[in-house]
Amino acid sequence: MGDPVYYHDYLHLDELLSTQQPLTDAHDELLFIVVHQAYELWFRQVIHELEAVHAILSGDVVPESAMLRLVGHLDRVGSIQIIMLAQLATLETMTPLDFMDFRDSLVPASGFQSVQWRVIENLLGIPVDTRLPIDGKRYTSRLADDHAAAVGASERRPSIFDLVEAWLERTPFLEAPGFAFWDAYRRAVDDLAADELRLIEANTNLTDDARASQIARAEANRARLAALFDDGLYAAEQQAGNVRMSRRAFLAAVMINLYRDEPIVQVPFQMLTALVDLDEGFTTWRYGHALMARRMIGGRIGTGGTSGAEYLTEAASRYRVWGDLLDMATYLVPRHAIPPLPDGLRDKMGFA
Amino acid sequence: MGDPVYYHDYLHLDELLSTQQPLTDAHDELLFIVVHQAYELWFRQVIHELEAVHAILSGDVVPESAMLRLVGHLDRVGSIQIIMLAQLATLETMTPLDFMDFRDSLVPASGFQSVQWRVIENLLGIPVDTRLPIDGKRYTSRLADDHAAAVGASERRPSIFDLVEAWLERTPFLEAPGFAFWDAYRRAVDDLAADELRLIEANTNLTDDARASQIARAEANRARLAALFDDGLYAAEQQAGNVRMSRRAFLAAVMINLYRDEPIVQVPFQMLTALVDLDEGFTTWRYGHALMARRMIGGRIGTGGTSGAEYLTEAASRYRVWGDLLDMATYLVPRHAIPPLPDGLRDKMGFA
Amino acid sequence: MGDPVYYHDYLHLDELLSTQQPLTDAHDELLFIVVHQAYELWFRQVIHELEAVHAILSGDVVPESAMLRLVGHLDRVGSIQIIMLAQLATLETMTPLDFMDFRDSLVPASGFQSVQWRVIENLLGIPVDTRLPIDGKRYTSRLADDHAAAVGASERRPSIFDLVEAWLERTPFLEAPGFAFWDAYRRAVDDLAADELRLIEANTNLTDDARASQIARAEANRARLAALFDDGLYAAEQQAGNVRMSRRAFLAAVMINLYRDEPIVQVPFQMLTALVDLDEGFTTWRYGHALMARRMIGGRIGTGGTSGAEYLTEAASRYRVWGDLLDMATYLVPRHAIPPLPDGLRDKMGFA
Amino acid sequence: MGDPVYYHDYLHLDELLSTQQPLTDAHDELLFIVVHQAYELWFRQVIHELEAVHAILSGDVVPESAMLRLVGHLDRVGSIQIIMLAQLATLETMTPLDFMDFRDSLVPASGFQSVQWRVIENLLGIPVDTRLPIDGKRYTSRLADDHAAAVGASERRPSIFDLVEAWLERTPFLEAPGFAFWDAYRRAVDDLAADELRLIEANTNLTDDARASQIARAEANRARLAALFDDGLYAAEQQAGNVRMSRRAFLAAVMINLYRDEPIVQVPFQMLTALVDLDEGFTTWRYGHALMARRMIGGRIGTGGTSGAEYLTEAASRYRVWGDLLDMATYLVPRHAIPPLPDGLRDKMGFA
Repeated sequence: MGDPVYYHDYLHLDELLSTQQPLTDAHDELLFIVVHQAYELWFRQVIHELEAVHAILSGDVVPESAMLRLVGHLDRVGSIQIIMLAQLATLETMTPLDFMDFRDSLVPASGFQSVQWRVIENLLGIPVDTRLPIDGKRYTSRLADDHAAAVGASERRPSIFDLVEAWLERTPFLEAPGFAFWDAYRRAVDDLAADELRLIEANTNLTDDARASQIARAEANRARLAALFDDGLYAAEQQAGNVRMSRRAFLAAVMINLYRDEPIVQVPFQMLTALVDLDEGFTTWRYGHALMARRMIGGRIGTGGTSGAEYLTEAASRYRVWGDLLDMATYLVPRHAIPPLPDGLRDKMGFA
Repeated sequence: MGDPVYYHDYLHLDELLSTQQPLTDAHDELLFIVVHQAYELWFRQVIHELEAVHAILSGDVVPESAMLRLVGHLDRVGSIQIIMLAQLATLETMTPLDFMDFRDSLVPASGFQSVQWRVIENLLGIPVDTRLPIDGKRYTSRLADDHAAAVGASERRPSIFDLVEAWLERTPFLEAPGFAFWDAYRRAVDDLAADELRLIEANTNLTDDARASQIARAEANRARLAALFDDGLYAAEQQAGNVRMSRRAFLAAVMINLYRDEPIVQVPFQMLTALVDLDEGFTTWRYGHALMARRMIGGRIGTGGTSGAEYLTEAASRYRVWGDLLDMATYLVPRHAIPPLPDGLRDKMGFA
Repeated sequence: MGDPVYYHDYLHLDELLSTQQPLTDAHDELLFIVVHQAYELWFRQVIHELEAVHAILSGDVVPESAMLRLVGHLDRVGSIQIIMLAQLATLETMTPLDFMDFRDSLVPASGFQSVQWRVIENLLGIPVDTRLPIDGKRYTSRLADDHAAAVGASERRPSIFDLVEAWLERTPFLEAPGFAFWDAYRRAVDDLAADELRLIEANTNLTDDARASQIARAEANRARLAALFDDGLYAAEQQAGNVRMSRRAFLAAVMINLYRDEPIVQVPFQMLTALVDLDEGFTTWRYGHALMARRMIGGRIGTGGTSGAEYLTEAASRYRVWGDLLDMATYLVPRHAIPPLPDGLRDKMGFA
Repeated sequence: MGDPVYYHDYLHLDELLSTQQPLTDAHDELLFIVVHQAYELWFRQVIHELEAVHAILSGDVVPESAMLRLVGHLDRVGSIQIIMLAQLATLETMTPLDFMDFRDSLVPASGFQSVQWRVIENLLGIPVDTRLPIDGKRYTSRLADDHAAAVGASERRPSIFDLVEAWLERTPFLEAPGFAFWDAYRRAVDDLAADELRLIEANTNLTDDARASQIARAEANRARLAALFDDGLYAAEQQAGNVRMSRRAFLAAVMINLYRDEPIVQVPFQMLTALVDLDEGFTTWRYGHALMARRMIGGRIGTGGTSGAEYLTEAASRYRVWGDLLDMATYLVPRHAIPPLPDGLRDKMGFA
């Protein structure tokens, strides 16, 4: 046992509590600082958790005994997202008029300059080519050089998206069921697509235009389902931005969703669910952030000189990592239509 | 005192608890029913609160002694919105695969058929001409005749938007400050617009395109500010959909925001704030609902036969009542630039 | 496909929305009714989920493939608890003065008369002998005969506590590690208890009284740990109300906590965690309920004629099912001190 | 305009993000540090808001134009309490086993050593004589000398409780209604107390013991009500710890509650409500904290050497500032029984 530890020193409170240095004497500037600092503290923790996930997934083999921990790390980030939302609500107790008391002093500082947030986005796997420009330039353009470099480096590492995709591709059970299985699944999926079309035809309530647009949509779904079984079609869907994961990874994700009750995929299923949950949580936060910004600055240019609220709204609808999993429902079939697993395979998916 | 009251009878639990009648034996269908019934119960309460607000505002004069209650009704709806969000999260504990177990049996029923929800939207004042079509037809097209009639009737009453607008127009203090006041305000606002332009010019970081787009935006803001003082320009802004309230009501809202600390407008200011809060709360819920729907049905057609998740996302970004108040920040000036109230007026805004 | 389903009919909204029948014309009575009805709807769903858990655990063997679902049912109840808390906050938007407007009309109805809530408590396994009396009598004394009978029947079924205890007792790995394992664990636990005593001795800051009381407490912990390995001592601890589960079940719970990363216990560990979470969630709700009641009725007698807020506070601190698991920390040892699993056993805890 | 401001520098992120210095390499120690640091950041903000309230109330006259701001400060603390609760939930994603990995390194540091938290409690007005001892000594005994001095100083300033009490005592309307008013109120209150006794007598369901205990309770209420009108009796109630505020302040609080719709007391009523809300929020957090601690350390001694969870539970039920307002319901009468305000007074409570 070392020296006795004192709470105040352990947390470095003298330093921590001297980092709030308002530039004005507006009462609410402290709130502005504290909220942003609290976000940065939590971003640090989010990175810590995501790095742990990254490390687990980076091995050649992901040991089954690490899966519970992996899901725990993701769920913890989900729990932090609730804090993030609550902090938005607290920031909104500041009125636009109160913000005006110190807003000018901040120019051109901007939340877009949060290095940790950009690192989180890259660690999760926001595709670089979907990045919105800032000031008409690369999204890192307003960062100091070393910060831009750090964000750039985070782009070049494999993201959690990449690692999960690779992990899915390695799923051993993918070949196992053999041609017969995928054949049965494909028939079930085709039936479903046909049902959907019948449903539209039978809907006498529709105007011609509405019917045409729904049919187009159902056909697009059918095409996407067909692509699951054809490299060329699938590549075209990827090209069109309709799907991101590799075909092999996608098939594995479908299997995990359909057979999630088999012991060996119970926790992996939780992992896939947690990934969509995180995506949804960050999207919700981005929408909330955009609403808050619109309220705080209205139609004005943001302190960072960008178009403020509009930028944030656009980012909220665009910055998504797990659209493939969010759309999983398109690929599922009702339980009665799920092909049974061959006995040998089912055993392999259970305990010793 | 009447007969002794028994909890079970008072709440009509025999009836209440016999209204859950699943069509399948899928475990999760009960959740689906209970969530939707809980929403309808809360919608009923929301209508009750909004009707109370409506009644208070419908008189020729809104007594000051009713303002606290009015704000209380609005805040209660805000509290119900938190329940509404929590219910979404509970509904999301149902996976898409579980939904598939009973989804087909519901066709073509749809949440779009909630009469109470439509009435709430109309009571708040969602403009009828922004309504998205369903099946290519009027948004009530899938309702039974009497239900469509009830929703139609709710369209034709004055909405809370209309009543608040009329209340603002009657603000007695509007003429009071006289030409001098608005002149001073206008100069302050012009200075601000000019600052914004200077800020853009000074931003050497911008590409030419980004600068041009920001200047266009700042000019649009300036035009909107100028319109505040000119009937013709203001009408054009209304025509363009940039502003909804009458010019007179808008000026009153600006005054309330600037002078919110004067006793007579403290609670009215809370009312305006609560109205934006509600708008934001419903928008947040709509975004959450859209995300949930996408997850639950993916790219498929919704049970109601509409394009499901897309429709909901579009509605979330479009169905807004208080955009004018949300944009209020555009019209505010920093405290040091707020013209002082003439003494006589200030006294009138205080207590006896 | 049957007849087309209409949202309004599917949810039986005509019936549902006609069950709110206030006895007064106080504005807030509707809120009071709606909140309580919403609680009853959610209680119904909670019972539905708990019954599913009950059914899974009632078999002679709980199939591993059911564990994910089981945890899902429990987590859903956890999600409903968040709604329950949000509903409390909404009820608190009613002020005591508003409550007074209709409170007298409700006498002697009382939330204590919620049959579903009592059934939930019994299903979870609140011990009957800890029940607080109402009016000095059995806790069902104010219920109608058939309702009291229904609650009584729920007491006599095995509770989820009983079923989980039995499931733990059947854990196959319990004997497996043999004497050597428990011996090692016991040494680790003893070391920890000794450390705790040393810590107290070393604390020069303590007054004599404080030291004596801490030592007494540490000795009590040590006695409880020793009891884990001795039937007689353990029975005495049970007798004293310090522990509830059987010794065998307790040992299994300890093992699951220590070896939770082994694949076969990952989901069982989540189940134990979810059970404590539920317990904590209901306790939190009870505390919130008690605070709300005190605020609403102050020191007065509750509508039900009981001592109101005090009863609820006492129930909050007393009605607990999983105190054993809540106290699990007392029985854990640091990771470095956890005895390694014999190889044969570790294999058996993995996948085929 | 000064130098351009950079987000990273403005928030002092280099310093802020270098204050997380775990003593071990346990993964979860960072979470432990970040949660506690986030609490300290928010405590700083809470103090900032409470100091603003303190300053407003410290003047000889509290200007009406400051009331909206005062309520805003309190509501913001309420909003921060939601963050505080969310942070507890995040901390609970750490399991006891994970805590054990670094817990020993922290000894004897303890959350009881948070200076800011103690200052908040004193600023609010937790009575010093209700403080639980730590290690059998004064609650500041484990603090460094300068920290203990700072906490001690915060005890000796007038608390917000003291200032609100003084403000209530100065209420000008208290004498105004004259003897007639209080007489009418007193009769209404007496009727209510008599009703309560009748209710108990009429309750045939009660056992004799239960009836006797309820009657004792109703008599205690009646005595408290009588004390409102008698200095000697009131002093005795204060002595017995049943009431804390001065009699004059209490009467003013009763009036504000009864006549809250009169314009001049609408915002003061919101202030009193916000004060109870805060009290309830901190109590809820304390209960949550106690539950979390019990789960994390079970029956063991806390790192700080105190009895841990038990101490926290006791503090949660004891550390209350506004018990008087929480019990306000005892002193209210139904609306129909509220004596009407004399016309002259009513006018004085309205606007000019």
